[in-house]
Amino acid sequence: MVDHELTGAFAPVVTPFHADLTPDAPRFLAHCEWLLSQGVGLAPFGTNSEANSLGLSERMALLDLLVDNGLDTRRMLPGTGCCSLPETVALTRHAVERGCAGVLMLPPFFYKGISDGGLYDYYARVIGQVADARLRLYLYHIPALSGVPITLPVIERLIRDFPQTVVGIKDSSGDWNNLNAMLDAFSGFGIFPASESLVSRASAKGAKGCISATVNVNPQIIGRLCREWAGDGGAALQAQADAVRSIVQSYPMIPALKAVLASHRDDPSWSRVRPPLTPLSDEQHERLLAQLAACGFALPG
Amino acid sequence: MVDHELTGAFAPVVTPFHADLTPDAPRFLAHCEWLLSQGVGLAPFGTNSEANSLGLSERMALLDLLVDNGLDTRRMLPGTGCCSLPETVALTRHAVERGCAGVLMLPPFFYKGISDGGLYDYYARVIGQVADARLRLYLYHIPALSGVPITLPVIERLIRDFPQTVVGIKDSSGDWNNLNAMLDAFSGFGIFPASESLVSRASAKGAKGCISATVNVNPQIIGRLCREWAGDGGAALQAQADAVRSIVQSYPMIPALKAVLASHRDDPSWSRVRPPLTPLSDEQHERLLAQLAACGFALPG
Repeated sequence: MVDHELTGAFAPVVTPFHADLTPDAPRFLAHCEWLLSQGVGLAPFGTNSEANSLGLSERMALLDLLVDNGLDTRRMLPGTGCCSLPETVALTRHAVERGCAGVLMLPPFFYKGISDGGLYDYYARVIGQVADARLRLYLYHIPALSGVPITLPVIERLIRDFPQTVVGIKDSSGDWNNLNAMLDAFSGFGIFPASESLVSRASAKGAKGCISATVNVNPQIIGRLCREWAGDGGAALQAQADAVRSIVQSYPMIPALKAVLASHRDDPSWSRVRPPLTPLSDEQHERLLAQLAACGFALPG
Repeated sequence: MVDHELTGAFAPVVTPFHADLTPDAPRFLAHCEWLLSQGVGLAPFGTNSEANSLGLSERMALLDLLVDNGLDTRRMLPGTGCCSLPETVALTRHAVERGCAGVLMLPPFFYKGISDGGLYDYYARVIGQVADARLRLYLYHIPALSGVPITLPVIERLIRDFPQTVVGIKDSSGDWNNLNAMLDAFSGFGIFPASESLVSRASAKGAKGCISATVNVNPQIIGRLCREWAGDGGAALQAQADAVRSIVQSYPMIPALKAVLASHRDDPSWSRVRPPLTPLSDEQHERLLAQLAACGFALPG
């Protein structure tokens, strides 16, 4: 296994839209620059980015925008997993060619009841067709949305056969037992829980940080938590991070994140989501802001 | 509501692949020509077509192949539903421009727990962006794979607001109660169950035929069943169709259909599937053929 370099907090970057619901490139770029300035990495085109509501060409154009503007590709982990082999290969090859440190790859998620052999074969073929030694692949385990769990035997076989390439996983199962089993089984693997609420517990067993929705609005605290969880202030940071997380995740996550950005930046256009998602209701939006204010939340400048 | 013209049996056309897993255009064309010659319609790029394992450009090229070769577009109902609005619009516009009688549209299927309002908005925006009076849209209800049910209130609202456009639905729920409720609620709507096993029962209540996987291998019987279910021989046709269906559906459907075509055409290349699917095992393949032979099945010439 290579010594991969991705550690710390990563934001699955939310995607702003114009009124006609085309991607808002200037706001996207500005949000990514702001996240990097807060000390966290970028995982654009994830679940919270509405990546699967974007077309292939939109995804490539937004990644090009970041790279062409000089944002640090060593801190970029774009999502590239589609339902189809050729589209996953196309996005992955593009990310590698643009210099991204890694890619985060959903399993193909339309068919259900997929065998371990079929899932292994899919990933193996993607790697074979991308055919680039620079590829660093992070698996994306999110069974509640994909319906296709990435099982431990599949992970083990991929690590064994592609030790230089398959270097990590994001675990969005929300299941400590699954995360714990991976941490026990795959020492040195780049394991990232999907919530900062697990950072202290998982980092103590070797996790590398987190890739979490709420990094979009709480990057400083979560970034510090990923670096300082073991220090004297670790417990306090964990508690601060948990307080914000527990409020935000009690709403539909994507519109809630966008509502926070819209309000704290006084920029209502951030509230837009692509269908089939819907924005928070006005009542939800106000209640969310009030709850965050009550716990002392402020969007960092 | 317009008087839509699609009735009878439609095959969600299975997609053949070359050894490198690129689509096999000549075999695809020949299979489609054969299906039409058997008196059934074409619903290419459905679940059984491995449509979601194909890229956008592959899907468009295969549809162009059929149209450029003069196959009857009045009997074509290609699948065009993707996760993203722009890709669904692109495929739908292409199908309409090529003259297809209708399109069969999955809901966006990555996000789960979608509200009725969000799902309605998605379909309404697709229709608005395609902006073509020729569009005839059939909804595709397949909750076990999409995870996004198309509820009766969504259907009702779409029919009300787009009566010339939203003209039917394929119900792959396998749930008679759901099919029955739609037949009761939406008189004159183009309702197609996803299995020939429901044809007699559903047609008696106004269903228009079926769009069924097994039409790929049993087109004559299922086509006749859709036309003659109410006649003297209707019960016998239903029983003949059921016998084949019950055997094939006891295996993973897509590799089973391909195994039947591979063996009965003495053309092993038909067995190929794209990952994450896997072919039948040799043991499964042999058992399937033996069971079909025992019930007198032969692929029509």
